[in-house]
Amino acid sequence: MKPFADLSRFINPRNVAVVGASARESSQGRRLYDNLVLHSSVPGEIYAVNPAYQEIGGRPCWPSISALPEAEIDVALIMINAALVLDTLRQCVARGIPYAVVMTSGFSEAGEEGRRLEREIAELCEATGLHVYGPNCPGFVNVRDRLGMTFSPAFKDDLNAGSIGLATQGGGLGRNLLQGLSFGQGVGLWFSAGNEVDLEIPDFIAHMANDPKISVIALLMEGVKNGRRLTAALELARAGNKPVVVLKVGRSEAGVRAAQSHTASVAGTAAVNSAVFRQFGAIEVDDLDQLLAVSRLLTRITPKSGKGLCIYTFSGGTAALAADIAGAADLPMAAFSPATKAALRERLPDFASINNPVDTTADILRNPAASADCLRAICADPSVGTVLFPIPMDYGVITDGMAQAIATVAAETETLIVPVWMSRRLGGGFQLLESAGLLPFLSLSDAIAALAKAVPWQRCAGQPTATAPHAEAAGGGARMLSEAAAKQLLREAGLPIPQGTVVTSAAQAAVAAERLGFPVVMKVVSAQIAHKTEAGGVRLGIASAGAAREAYAAIHEAVARHNPDAVIDGILVERMLPPGGREVLVGVHSDAAFGLVLTFGLGGIFVETIRDVAHRMIPLSRDDARALLREIRYAEVLDGVRGQAPADLAALEDLILKVSDYAWNHRDTLQEIELNPVWVGAEGQGAMPLDALIGLRADADSASERRPS
Amino acid sequence: MKPFADLSRFINPRNVAVVGASARESSQGRRLYDNLVLHSSVPGEIYAVNPAYQEIGGRPCWPSISALPEAEIDVALIMINAALVLDTLRQCVARGIPYAVVMTSGFSEAGEEGRRLEREIAELCEATGLHVYGPNCPGFVNVRDRLGMTFSPAFKDDLNAGSIGLATQGGGLGRNLLQGLSFGQGVGLWFSAGNEVDLEIPDFIAHMANDPKISVIALLMEGVKNGRRLTAALELARAGNKPVVVLKVGRSEAGVRAAQSHTASVAGTAAVNSAVFRQFGAIEVDDLDQLLAVSRLLTRITPKSGKGLCIYTFSGGTAALAADIAGAADLPMAAFSPATKAALRERLPDFASINNPVDTTADILRNPAASADCLRAICADPSVGTVLFPIPMDYGVITDGMAQAIATVAAETETLIVPVWMSRRLGGGFQLLESAGLLPFLSLSDAIAALAKAVPWQRCAGQPTATAPHAEAAGGGARMLSEAAAKQLLREAGLPIPQGTVVTSAAQAAVAAERLGFPVVMKVVSAQIAHKTEAGGVRLGIASAGAAREAYAAIHEAVARHNPDAVIDGILVERMLPPGGREVLVGVHSDAAFGLVLTFGLGGIFVETIRDVAHRMIPLSRDDARALLREIRYAEVLDGVRGQAPADLAALEDLILKVSDYAWNHRDTLQEIELNPVWVGAEGQGAMPLDALIGLRADADSASERRPS
Repeated sequence: MKPFADLSRFINPRNVAVVGASARESSQGRRLYDNLVLHSSVPGEIYAVNPAYQEIGGRPCWPSISALPEAEIDVALIMINAALVLDTLRQCVARGIPYAVVMTSGFSEAGEEGRRLEREIAELCEATGLHVYGPNCPGFVNVRDRLGMTFSPAFKDDLNAGSIGLATQGGGLGRNLLQGLSFGQGVGLWFSAGNEVDLEIPDFIAHMANDPKISVIALLMEGVKNGRRLTAALELARAGNKPVVVLKVGRSEAGVRAAQSHTASVAGTAAVNSAVFRQFGAIEVDDLDQLLAVSRLLTRITPKSGKGLCIYTFSGGTAALAADIAGAADLPMAAFSPATKAALRERLPDFASINNPVDTTADILRNPAASADCLRAICADPSVGTVLFPIPMDYGVITDGMAQAIATVAAETETLIVPVWMSRRLGGGFQLLESAGLLPFLSLSDAIAALAKAVPWQRCAGQPTATAPHAEAAGGGARMLSEAAAKQLLREAGLPIPQGTVVTSAAQAAVAAERLGFPVVMKVVSAQIAHKTEAGGVRLGIASAGAAREAYAAIHEAVARHNPDAVIDGILVERMLPPGGREVLVGVHSDAAFGLVLTFGLGGIFVETIRDVAHRMIPLSRDDARALLREIRYAEVLDGVRGQAPADLAALEDLILKVSDYAWNHRDTLQEIELNPVWVGAEGQGAMPLDALIGLRADADSASERRPS
Repeated sequence: MKPFADLSRFINPRNVAVVGASARESSQGRRLYDNLVLHSSVPGEIYAVNPAYQEIGGRPCWPSISALPEAEIDVALIMINAALVLDTLRQCVARGIPYAVVMTSGFSEAGEEGRRLEREIAELCEATGLHVYGPNCPGFVNVRDRLGMTFSPAFKDDLNAGSIGLATQGGGLGRNLLQGLSFGQGVGLWFSAGNEVDLEIPDFIAHMANDPKISVIALLMEGVKNGRRLTAALELARAGNKPVVVLKVGRSEAGVRAAQSHTASVAGTAAVNSAVFRQFGAIEVDDLDQLLAVSRLLTRITPKSGKGLCIYTFSGGTAALAADIAGAADLPMAAFSPATKAALRERLPDFASINNPVDTTADILRNPAASADCLRAICADPSVGTVLFPIPMDYGVITDGMAQAIATVAAETETLIVPVWMSRRLGGGFQLLESAGLLPFLSLSDAIAALAKAVPWQRCAGQPTATAPHAEAAGGGARMLSEAAAKQLLREAGLPIPQGTVVTSAAQAAVAAERLGFPVVMKVVSAQIAHKTEAGGVRLGIASAGAAREAYAAIHEAVARHNPDAVIDGILVERMLPPGGREVLVGVHSDAAFGLVLTFGLGGIFVETIRDVAHRMIPLSRDDARALLREIRYAEVLDGVRGQAPADLAALEDLILKVSDYAWNHRDTLQEIELNPVWVGAEGQGAMPLDALIGLRADADSASERRPS
């Protein structure tokens, strides 16, 4: 894996060159140059480069990078015709300039010639160590140090600095996010590297994970170019206790189509992406509003905020609605201590509701001091981690007083107070909450959705993943092994496999069945028969030697009728497992971005109709395996419904870990595994695959087929 | 059912009396009086009533309603101690005042004494025809005619009039909604009748359904007092082609708890409420933001807007994200005609995406005329009903020009253009869209969620329900009939029931089984055995006369062992249905608010684990029955998964309609029906209940038990 780039000189350059700086008003080259000269604080020199000018706005201009005076230049900003970019980059290398930002379009997004240019840039980077940011990008903005290496006309207006670090791929939505953070907590750094020929989102995450001025990392991704670097960067962020919030475009088919026409990256399967984000502790959100809301909220999170939620308001309807939405979001509500209840009872009218949710009634609006006291008592309750305070309307001075009470208490407590200014009138009360840094929400639903995403992070922050780096994606098709061969490999890998043997005559079948003990199952072994049941190649519940003999003949006959050309290698005779087990699916497949991914789900209709599955990148830790079993929607089936005994979860975990280890050890040759169904008995009865398929990569050599190293 | 009140004199009174008008600054009585005298346009007289004053603010004050001068007074507004209210209402009756608004608190929400007072008010209304609005409410606001019969200090500030009619129960959230509609399309009338002792939300819906100045009805409900009046009012709205948008509080357990402590109404089961809203054409939403967004959008909806969606923007990332969210919301996308594509191709750069979603790229920002032409071409496409136009950032004059282009085209077309101003900077472009009446959304997700709710309404607007008024809720417990008795009743009602007979000896069992034809099923008939299978009281697949004899003895023995006290009335012998049928559940139960409700769902784990059910108030029309079968989440199981033949949906519809008719005909005595499982064969094979329970109301007389009239 390519190491992460050191971006310190890129983030805070001393001297920069602007290649394509222009004197022409409202040209992109002019806006880029002006953003640096007029609107940025660059500590050193800004060198204009353009053969068409001798000076721009009274400052000197040079014909090329090579012609620049002697100086240590940190970053070259490039806004020239795509065909000229490569030569300029070579000049950068010659001059020892470590970073270049290529904003120009016309590369891989534009067709074959552009893709070729991009490959040459990538080769140049690899050969020389030059770092290229772009091409086809809006540039880089260091908001906190007021540095705009961008041609955007909005740069000078969107300078609300803060501790949120932002990495995007396209420019438009990044600007949208910047404008969304133009009040309250703002953005520290905004990376948006377009086609990502060299520097990629993982480089930016890795930098921000170690940047002490960044507290939350917000990502907007259209595709994942390199899953391995992404997960490694996410691990750095988790180790640095920096929450990562991610919005991934391309979750519906229409979105994938649009994302692919917009960028050149791999869209990835939505479910696998989501599973990987979850596995590596990133918080996935559903839309832009939520990306902003969750990121902003996380900048305020405290160690106590993981405790229970209190809803506190002065309108009964609002209390009910908030409780409703919080209930639907499964947010755990705090139970007040007797002391808290007594403090509220003392200060609130009889008809107020002093249980959580608290409805003080509107009486309290006349008495901001009592309001502050009640809020103080609630914040002091050890079971209360977060107070959600919806303010349904703007009553002018009355709600101003309420806002002041909130700000006063918020400054005193470790409990997170989350005000929601629900009115479209953003009067004095709202302004007061903003000035106090309380980042008031404007929507009750948004606030609760953001809490539901942010609070669990607080609970598991800083926990390192046990997961190791993953396998690279395999290319090419697969060569399938027979059930018997697959089971033999898995048995050697330590998986429990039903006892069985392959027989080639009716007499052998009877002997084998006697030895295994009745009842047995018999199944055809043939490379030409993929769907054994449909071909009549499976007989269940065979209870005597005679029945085994009959079944041997019957399977041969049925399969021959189904496919006269099928070569039958034998019949697999297996001990049948006791009835009443649950059936699940365990599989492994190769994802283009993330490599080998394990899938778990309940069997039968749960897989086929409900598609209730969960995923993890391999290799899995035991914690991963345990979490996987709970992540499916109907996990309760494993616990036992309708008086059924709980399933043998320990055995199922073991089996999943062994599959994961097997796949990991054979990652160079493995394409896919499907164990479907896996039989899971009641506690103590174990778990084992009833059917097994293994597909090897078509390019794996045959020596590794039976004994992958 | 109590008829709906004629509210015309209430909405536009000529003379009003203010009982409890006060001279004391900032008292509620003073604010109420000032709202009328200073801030409202009352065509006639405003009479102050308060024994403590002779005049208030230089205007005369009378000691009581009785003491008022001769005049036709339309509405008495009452803001006095709860204990004095009843006497004042009696004076209203004596004076012939038809409407009273009781704002005072201290009634059923406050305890037993308050509940008693409320009952007396209800009796007074019933006896005299007086209409009471309240108590415990913020009053009534006729925004469009600037009439504030309310003590709210915010009344004078929230007067943005429009065509949305609003009915709420609590005051705080109603004010929130009013402030949320303080720009663009506003509110015409706001009803909020608190404890609803007499006038209720259905009265307000019924009024607004016939009010030509109201185009959309928005409801915020904490509980349903009278389901029958509600559904009748919803039918009036549908007949009047007025969309009804409803937010129902109390969908989670916490919400129900809070709602019950806040109002005195019945919260109702969330699923039944939702089913009834759907059945009667009301659009249910999830939160306040959506209530506003969907209501506002519906005021702009056109007949063409039900066609396909086009996403049109100048940022590739935004196009992808919008397509993603629209895809997740299942909004059907339009396919452009060749003419539309040609028009776009002509005007847009080569690297633009001219398929839906359209990404013009940012080049277009320099050329608003081309932008208008492209938009015009798309709007002219017959497959495009709605154009969603997300504008991700505010670029000052550049985006102002874009907004102007949108406004120009929107004024020319029947296609609905929905602009989304995604930036927090609400600059000139945003203002221009607002002034043009285009109600720009501020969030992409909100816009798409609102479209997903509003567009289907357009497709089915004005369709009358075939559904008749429903049964009142039954009180008391239930008396259960035996399976055999229940099946006999259902057979008489025309339902297909497996052929069968009750036998009382092993010999009879053998004869019955022979006559029915093998295989048969045998089940114990006993009032003491509710769960027959668990008691060993069921034998399946009996294939011979001998086996039937054995089964007779075995069932007796098993049941006696299970429950020695059980009286066995006999054994039901039934023809067994062919294997491979699907199992479903059809049930009827009595809902406190809506009366008898029918439930349909798939059987087995779909009922027990997944709880995949749908509901309808009875009686159902055939369209209802058909829709019900599609409303469950996994309706595809009925179509046949894994190569299975489609289920006999026609037979299942017939069965559901017969159950509905049976329940409707016996609504005075019926408590519940459960047919579980109902066997549904493949097309042409029919559908019939394998087991049946009927519960009669404990208060139904025994004559009606076997033959309900």
